[in-house]
Amino acid sequence: MIELRSDTFTLPTPAMRDAMVRAPLGDDVYAEDPTVRELEELAASTLGKQAACLTPSGTMANLATIMAHAPRGAAMLVGAESDIYIYEAGGAAVCGGVTYLPVPNQPDGRLLLTDLAAGFPDDPDDPQFAVPALICLENTQNRCGGVILPLAYLAEVRRFADERGVPVHLDGARIFNAAVGSGVDVAEIARHADSVQFCLSKGLGAPIGSVVVGDADLIERVRRVRKMLGGGMRQAGIIAAAGIIAIREHGRLAEDHANARRLAEGLATIDGIEVDPASVQTNIVMFRVPEHRLTRARFLAEAHAAGVALAELGHGRVRAVTHSGVAGADVDRALTVIDAVLNGR
Amino acid sequence: MIELRSDTFTLPTPAMRDAMVRAPLGDDVYAEDPTVRELEELAASTLGKQAACLTPSGTMANLATIMAHAPRGAAMLVGAESDIYIYEAGGAAVCGGVTYLPVPNQPDGRLLLTDLAAGFPDDPDDPQFAVPALICLENTQNRCGGVILPLAYLAEVRRFADERGVPVHLDGARIFNAAVGSGVDVAEIARHADSVQFCLSKGLGAPIGSVVVGDADLIERVRRVRKMLGGGMRQAGIIAAAGIIAIREHGRLAEDHANARRLAEGLATIDGIEVDPASVQTNIVMFRVPEHRLTRARFLAEAHAAGVALAELGHGRVRAVTHSGVAGADVDRALTVIDAVLNGR
Amino acid sequence: MIELRSDTFTLPTPAMRDAMVRAPLGDDVYAEDPTVRELEELAASTLGKQAACLTPSGTMANLATIMAHAPRGAAMLVGAESDIYIYEAGGAAVCGGVTYLPVPNQPDGRLLLTDLAAGFPDDPDDPQFAVPALICLENTQNRCGGVILPLAYLAEVRRFADERGVPVHLDGARIFNAAVGSGVDVAEIARHADSVQFCLSKGLGAPIGSVVVGDADLIERVRRVRKMLGGGMRQAGIIAAAGIIAIREHGRLAEDHANARRLAEGLATIDGIEVDPASVQTNIVMFRVPEHRLTRARFLAEAHAAGVALAELGHGRVRAVTHSGVAGADVDRALTVIDAVLNGR
Amino acid sequence: MIELRSDTFTLPTPAMRDAMVRAPLGDDVYAEDPTVRELEELAASTLGKQAACLTPSGTMANLATIMAHAPRGAAMLVGAESDIYIYEAGGAAVCGGVTYLPVPNQPDGRLLLTDLAAGFPDDPDDPQFAVPALICLENTQNRCGGVILPLAYLAEVRRFADERGVPVHLDGARIFNAAVGSGVDVAEIARHADSVQFCLSKGLGAPIGSVVVGDADLIERVRRVRKMLGGGMRQAGIIAAAGIIAIREHGRLAEDHANARRLAEGLATIDGIEVDPASVQTNIVMFRVPEHRLTRARFLAEAHAAGVALAELGHGRVRAVTHSGVAGADVDRALTVIDAVLNGR
Repeated sequence: MIELRSDTFTLPTPAMRDAMVRAPLGDDVYAEDPTVRELEELAASTLGKQAACLTPSGTMANLATIMAHAPRGAAMLVGAESDIYIYEAGGAAVCGGVTYLPVPNQPDGRLLLTDLAAGFPDDPDDPQFAVPALICLENTQNRCGGVILPLAYLAEVRRFADERGVPVHLDGARIFNAAVGSGVDVAEIARHADSVQFCLSKGLGAPIGSVVVGDADLIERVRRVRKMLGGGMRQAGIIAAAGIIAIREHGRLAEDHANARRLAEGLATIDGIEVDPASVQTNIVMFRVPEHRLTRARFLAEAHAAGVALAELGHGRVRAVTHSGVAGADVDRALTVIDAVLNGR
Repeated sequence: MIELRSDTFTLPTPAMRDAMVRAPLGDDVYAEDPTVRELEELAASTLGKQAACLTPSGTMANLATIMAHAPRGAAMLVGAESDIYIYEAGGAAVCGGVTYLPVPNQPDGRLLLTDLAAGFPDDPDDPQFAVPALICLENTQNRCGGVILPLAYLAEVRRFADERGVPVHLDGARIFNAAVGSGVDVAEIARHADSVQFCLSKGLGAPIGSVVVGDADLIERVRRVRKMLGGGMRQAGIIAAAGIIAIREHGRLAEDHANARRLAEGLATIDGIEVDPASVQTNIVMFRVPEHRLTRARFLAEAHAAGVALAELGHGRVRAVTHSGVAGADVDRALTVIDAVLNGR
Repeated sequence: MIELRSDTFTLPTPAMRDAMVRAPLGDDVYAEDPTVRELEELAASTLGKQAACLTPSGTMANLATIMAHAPRGAAMLVGAESDIYIYEAGGAAVCGGVTYLPVPNQPDGRLLLTDLAAGFPDDPDDPQFAVPALICLENTQNRCGGVILPLAYLAEVRRFADERGVPVHLDGARIFNAAVGSGVDVAEIARHADSVQFCLSKGLGAPIGSVVVGDADLIERVRRVRKMLGGGMRQAGIIAAAGIIAIREHGRLAEDHANARRLAEGLATIDGIEVDPASVQTNIVMFRVPEHRLTRARFLAEAHAAGVALAELGHGRVRAVTHSGVAGADVDRALTVIDAVLNGR
Repeated sequence: MIELRSDTFTLPTPAMRDAMVRAPLGDDVYAEDPTVRELEELAASTLGKQAACLTPSGTMANLATIMAHAPRGAAMLVGAESDIYIYEAGGAAVCGGVTYLPVPNQPDGRLLLTDLAAGFPDDPDDPQFAVPALICLENTQNRCGGVILPLAYLAEVRRFADERGVPVHLDGARIFNAAVGSGVDVAEIARHADSVQFCLSKGLGAPIGSVVVGDADLIERVRRVRKMLGGGMRQAGIIAAAGIIAIREHGRLAEDHANARRLAEGLATIDGIEVDPASVQTNIVMFRVPEHRLTRARFLAEAHAAGVALAELGHGRVRAVTHSGVAGADVDRALTVIDAVLNGR
């Protein structure tokens, strides 16, 4: 099976498995796991922040950070196409008493400053409004096709947020894809946000975990919420050991990006597929199938039966994600399969 | 001062004051206030529902009803221009753990069925989604200009909701305006919803209170939430006495509608005002001032200084609302003032 | 019927009804109701605080104040026999995400400082603990029999709280009973607390409403929460008008206290009744009936049938509460009825 | 260092590390990790339940299960000395809107049925009460000294709960200690509860994770809450692989129990130590030091400096916990150290 549904399917490399088996461990709930500390220090320094906190998932990393930033009763500006708004089960409302204020994502992933501004009430003292206490961005932006938010845009949002006196949280689940894809240091991206979460378990290839980085005070608050949510893990060095390698070797994401472009270009040559190879910036390819010939559900089922796993991703689109488990040859084979499914060859 | 900011400024009539002073009272927290019971029975029968519950405000009526319908972790489809989404301080998230899923309001107030449908995940068992457990409509729709949702549309949403297995709550703060404005019995409107809240304290003219109607089970749950929120009031018959008169005399809203049209038509003749008299269906008039000549804030301040109180209502619009405290002559005087402010006459 | 179940059954006096009918009104959600402002100023000055906020009930007054003091995730030290813990439906947990930490009430109503101290974790930075952010006292203490917390004790708790850096909220639903019962100015009691709520609708005799007092910042936060909970009321001057009289005439509570003592002394002479007249400090009398002769439920039902309404109040006790609707002659008649029910005379 | 602070400090065995490195993996958020499925099936069958769900911690296992059982606004009866009440940061209130109703733990860990009964209001329809929707027990009971709740008692609570119509959740963080300590099958203990959570990461020795078991419907709801809290982990087979071995080899807890008894008996011979060896039923020993000679804090610090790590556990007690990292010889050495610290030898 060529697994293109998500980069969450990545399996740990032998080096990661080896590191896991050798990692010095302690009880991280007592802050005594040396491997977790090493990971957190590496994450903080890599992203240019004071401190870091390991969590079991990106969902918890986002949720704990939102709760650390925004008090009960606040609102949060978030992309209408963002993973936080769509795929995280309303946790900010349930656990945080925070209202989501979705703002349209532009096709390039951006939230317009005018749209952000419209989310702030004229009179923040008027008690009928839930007042924004946080702006969330996502980079790369998944549902916009893994697009990279430009540094200049991040700087604009930073200025806007400073004027408004609210922090910026970056859902950087795939921030290393953004860094590699745009050829900038990940800290250059992170510096425009007060907090960043990134996933060890997506393209970076570690089996479990996400990390939040930010200043020390914020991370202490994140840590407190993490405990309450049940994200305190005992000998978490097991997980962290793989995470350390994942961060160190993030340069290999360039291969995934090359494979994604190769896939998109190949798809563009297949009769019936609607795809824009020029829009592929990282490891995500969005395309459409000719539903009048084959429904999307049927297409997905037939491709799966023929050995290619693809996913639906809203608005009638199919998503293919490249990762360490997908080699160039797999891309070629996937193209052959897709062509055969669609065009009967 | 001609008060056009809102119909919440209505003062009780002498008949209401008289009823308040004479009302038989009891402790409504023990369900022993006979005047409250009379009001609740009148409200239920007028709207064609089994039961009713008095609350101190429309905000609480909506909040308690949302919490009675939707469990923690659910989502709620709601108009992006609705009062519930914009003006109720995120209470459903804070107190209910319910996520708002805003859906665009069409200019005529409707939420398109396709937009509602898009709020339901393909796979409701997938735990990454907060699943809609409630659809909220607003009738008349305030921020769309007091427009009336057509009965045929309400019936369509009813069918859609039944297919999806979710209840419909109607924020009918001004449902009596909708009934009078469209010449149908209020129960004809209410029958398409599982619950309706309406305000005694807007155009109906009572000083305090809103009422939720629905079936008996739902109202019991509303009553339980009301107590927790602090909406159990002792000798609430005082409030209810005015409310009974307010419901009985709702026919007088026709005057407010006539005055609103008169106002809109007059505004249309004033140089610089942008207004569509044909869009005025009830007691709300939305218009724009020529901001290049006079900013909206300045216009509002000058009109106020000249004796006409108007409000801002989002998207650069000014709102004027007619009610029992505004006579036909007041409308004429307001037009004169507005013209003078804008055109220096 | 002689109504002894609660002082919440008080009916407004003719003077209150008259004031309600004449009160100048405005929309209090816009902070424009002059009678509400007068009430809030009177309440604040009477209790010696900067500001005040009217709410529809004591439950909301407590809930909004708790939420204004304690952030999501905090704990709150509260009497195990307090109304906040027992009778307010868990609102602080539901709406506030605040954990109740019940502390035993001594028979005289006090929470021992050692018990309060035990509620603070050794290490407040340890994220496994919900850390106390508020101490709640109740004065008079209802379930301990309407007892008055001594000023010296309040001063001790104040010092303790200051050392710990947490505020003190006083549920003073019956604080005027405490003031009258101990012959001190109500501000003397209130000065040991950061916030006090008191009920207009209990012994003070107004039909609806409770008031929170505190410093201006706190009251602004209370006002914001009040709006979200749905406690913003439009022409609330109707309610406030009665409240102003209620506060001004609170001296009449002395009669209720005399009647309560008279009742307790009479009960002590009835064969089979267990009561301690010396423990009656205000308007509440707790007693026990000889359950081997007559179950409590049967006793309550028979007394009710004979024209005396009494209530159960936990731990096998019967509660009788005196108020403006109970005259001295009513007390004598109630004693005759109770004796007859128990002893067949 | 002889680590006696907690059994959470256990390190994975070589066999566990080996299993982790070899485990077949998948994305458990898509329910495709075969090792997680094997663990969940093993857990369910071992405890005699239909289904199981792996979580990153006991805190999340408890929280997600509480939220699966109890709706917003409910209350939960829980031991005043239970870990859920004391050490889980108020999560049920914050995330669940559930009120903790603490009930005294008897010295043997039990909650008396009369105390449980007192938590149910006479009239559950009275909206002023948060009504119990769940009873939580803890077995073994940590803060009562690792005591085992007798099967007959569990059966009594089961009957009581059935009469009341509420489910029973068992915090069985150390349920395998209870099983081994009392020589009964763990399913015999579990069958009296609707849900049980147990920790893989305490005495069982796995590095990370806890498991909830219950019927299939409940576990589906737990899984949904787990996702929202951020407990969905990707290649969680890494963790599960160690967990499988942990469950299979739970028989080795007998050694920990023998070591705990040996430790308690040794402590009893040390001048100044207050300990009851007869009360040691599993792997926890509680004792007191002569504070007039040496404060507890000083004792803990000196013992630590001398190579024995012990913990404070409330009410002036020291706790020592045996586990796989503590051999018989370690116990003897710890006794020597403690004696030396206290008695200067």
